[in-house]
Amino acid sequence: MPEKLSCLDELIQSLRCLPGVGPRSAQRMAYHLLQRDRAGAARLAASVGNALAALRHCARCNAFSEEEVCPRCANPRRDPARLCVVETPADLAMIEQTQTYDGLYYVLMGRLSPLDGIGPRELEFDRLLARAADGDVREIILATNFTNEGEITAHALATLLAARGLAVTRLSKGVPVGGELEHTGIGTIAQALAERRTMLP
Amino acid sequence: MPEKLSCLDELIQSLRCLPGVGPRSAQRMAYHLLQRDRAGAARLAASVGNALAALRHCARCNAFSEEEVCPRCANPRRDPARLCVVETPADLAMIEQTQTYDGLYYVLMGRLSPLDGIGPRELEFDRLLARAADGDVREIILATNFTNEGEITAHALATLLAARGLAVTRLSKGVPVGGELEHTGIGTIAQALAERRTMLP
Repeated sequence: MPEKLSCLDELIQSLRCLPGVGPRSAQRMAYHLLQRDRAGAARLAASVGNALAALRHCARCNAFSEEEVCPRCANPRRDPARLCVVETPADLAMIEQTQTYDGLYYVLMGRLSPLDGIGPRELEFDRLLARAADGDVREIILATNFTNEGEITAHALATLLAARGLAVTRLSKGVPVGGELEHTGIGTIAQALAERRTMLP
Repeated sequence: MPEKLSCLDELIQSLRCLPGVGPRSAQRMAYHLLQRDRAGAARLAASVGNALAALRHCARCNAFSEEEVCPRCANPRRDPARLCVVETPADLAMIEQTQTYDGLYYVLMGRLSPLDGIGPRELEFDRLLARAADGDVREIILATNFTNEGEITAHALATLLAARGLAVTRLSKGVPVGGELEHTGIGTIAQALAERRTMLP
């Protein structure tokens, strides 16, 4: 085909690096940007560039940050005795939204996944262990997901952290708030039964 | 919240200008770009910028082009007597993929949609009429979609073009190739029946 528009093809191809975007949506996105939202497109190009240039990992919590230490880790009103370990910044954001936690965080930026070649080295477990050994941290709250990989990650970390004399806790498992037993997985019900809690003295 | 990361928020916001991307996917995309595909992100920023700078509308067919007249319109082996009118570059690409059409195209870059304020003026019907009046065009093939808006667009154009003495045709409606009647809408079956064609003399 001598009729290829390299610039347009280039744009369509580059949109495919976004997760969940296949050839069709990349094409639709490219046309949309060029035809309907050139201002948005310009802003997108600039903000991707800015983010790449300005964002790094916070030296303490490993989340994205514009500073060496992010404002959350630098906040003196946060309790340095508790460190909550999550897989991703999105998980951190969910916990923050509960407005019930004022300790600090550590973001793994992933989970153990041997099949994908992601082991303790790739997740830099050493950095977390060093962070947890700062003398202030008393309790590590493991808040990785309750998927297979998240559970394996939590167990691996629990072993390493407990060996260093830290108290290690895990988010509780059970029936979701508002959940009906009829629509709850039997695995969850079995867990909720096994981990049942006293209601009245 | 003094803990906002403006650069990251900015990136997440700007990703939402892409069609079909809500707050959750924008967040996931941003983390993916920053954490897993910085090379892809850099390429994305560059290609959006390049496309905005380099692409314009072909003076003849209105599709995206890096030149004043796109290579397809400039190709002397294409038949200038037939002009196929489509809604979008994606529709044009579909027709090209059939490898059964060697005429020229005109891309409306939309369809009539009065509720969205898109009328003949917004779609620049005048440009198409001028293009169709170049003296070479003998037949206009209307290939807008068979949606309500696509049909309305086709009918409006047919009236205008026929008044200028041009032969106006429309893609046929009917049961899709490979389709089973049982799984075909009754509207389509009714059309296919009404527009039935002679098989044997």
